[in-house]
Amino acid sequence: MINKKKITENWFRELRNNICSSWLEIESKKGKGKKKFSRKKWLRNKEKNNGGGEMSLLVNGNIFEKVGVNISTVYGKFDEKFSKQIPGAIKNENKFWASGISVVAHFKNPHIPSLHFNTRYIETSKGWFGGGMDMTPCIKDLKQKKYFHNELKNMCNLHDKNYYKNFKKYCDQYFYLHHRKEPRGDGGIFYDYLDKNWEKNFNFTQEVGLTFLKMSCEIIKKKINKKWTKKDKAKQLIKRGRYVEFNLLYDRGTKFGLNTNGNVEAILMSLPPLAKW
Amino acid sequence: MINKKKITENWFRELRNNICSSWLEIESKKGKGKKKFSRKKWLRNKEKNNGGGEMSLLVNGNIFEKVGVNISTVYGKFDEKFSKQIPGAIKNENKFWASGISVVAHFKNPHIPSLHFNTRYIETSKGWFGGGMDMTPCIKDLKQKKYFHNELKNMCNLHDKNYYKNFKKYCDQYFYLHHRKEPRGDGGIFYDYLDKNWEKNFNFTQEVGLTFLKMSCEIIKKKINKKWTKKDKAKQLIKRGRYVEFNLLYDRGTKFGLNTNGNVEAILMSLPPLAKW
Repeated sequence: MINKKKITENWFRELRNNICSSWLEIESKKGKGKKKFSRKKWLRNKEKNNGGGEMSLLVNGNIFEKVGVNISTVYGKFDEKFSKQIPGAIKNENKFWASGISVVAHFKNPHIPSLHFNTRYIETSKGWFGGGMDMTPCIKDLKQKKYFHNELKNMCNLHDKNYYKNFKKYCDQYFYLHHRKEPRGDGGIFYDYLDKNWEKNFNFTQEVGLTFLKMSCEIIKKKINKKWTKKDKAKQLIKRGRYVEFNLLYDRGTKFGLNTNGNVEAILMSLPPLAKW
Repeated sequence: MINKKKITENWFRELRNNICSSWLEIESKKGKGKKKFSRKKWLRNKEKNNGGGEMSLLVNGNIFEKVGVNISTVYGKFDEKFSKQIPGAIKNENKFWASGISVVAHFKNPHIPSLHFNTRYIETSKGWFGGGMDMTPCIKDLKQKKYFHNELKNMCNLHDKNYYKNFKKYCDQYFYLHHRKEPRGDGGIFYDYLDKNWEKNFNFTQEVGLTFLKMSCEIIKKKINKKWTKKDKAKQLIKRGRYVEFNLLYDRGTKFGLNTNGNVEAILMSLPPLAKW
């Protein structure tokens, strides 16, 4: 039998390495200072063996103002109350295993949208994949939005004709600032509880990662040299304020992490370097 | 019989006027540009007559980087579920009336702590006062902290020997960033559900307001000309990020406001002008 845990964990690490090296290559194209990702490992609990993760952080780059690429593999037991909300956890005596990658990038140039991506594999008595990506520009660019969604649609269609429609809808519903009655950005795709056909789902999850890597490089490169004004930058800082609002008020991952004594630094790595209200 | 609603509503407005004019006087002492508070009224619901409020906002001052002074008087019916959490609401057919003032000030000079104050009077089948104030410096100043707490203690002791101890404790418990295991700032006092003796409680609430006004002016004036470095400013922006985290993750007023379709602008006026992560 194949070792699903080992395979997925390795994939997330490999993808992390690819994203970091590709983005570093882009970063090195502009300006002089040679930037590097700083790596930092963390353990969920030093006494217990219940996993941890590794953060890769690059700040104050010439292109990347702040980017975090996190991988983690955690396991153990959910508390009774939380366990009820997770498929197959009760049947598994509350035990779980989860591995994933999470990426958020904020750019110096306000023409480049903030980018968010994550994928994960979770096992209880069931096993499923989840994740996706979305894009938050502060300056409208319909051509860019069209490119992003077209690529996502084509990629999804290779796997299942219903994916794009369903996963786009889920993304739109989730990344919504209810108090402001406005979407967070241009949307994208999100999926969860993708179970049953493990090979199909893993293939899809791998392709989601590779598509993110490819598209992110395209989107960044296209805008690297685009001129921006002080006004554009101010607009970006305001939009980032909305980003903070979403992450702290609504994001389930953030809430889950903070409520379960996760690594604060890793959880809040998604917050922008500078934001305005 | 005295009209408690009219009296408290008038008091909060009068206090708002005093705070705005005193702070404007301080603001006018530095730099050239003559700053003003911009005033903006809002209604909770344009169709229904259920109250509203007035925001006073000053931004980009030479002393005040951003300060919001809100008053509001709202009334109507709580929804069934929320009503159960509010003393005396069920017995009052879910009807409530609430008036209050809320102030948050963020300063240009990182030596001046962020200041927060609010007081309110609420009526269901019961009637009670609540509120308080706290201070969030980003650069430690033990003398300032001592002054702040001594004044609060002396003021509280004029009303009730148990107030300071109890209200300081409540403040410390409430203004705590659980995910970071750190207090928001230097604390202060907070109280709630102060009922029974209306005159005593109203007197106390008035004095809390006047004490805030007096102390805030002292604290600001003392630091106006204190030199600060780029490093101090960076420290302030990081501390403000913590402030955002508290307000969006924990603050009950923020959550209540956003969940009940309150005025987003007024509710989030507490957020700092610029914050860093």
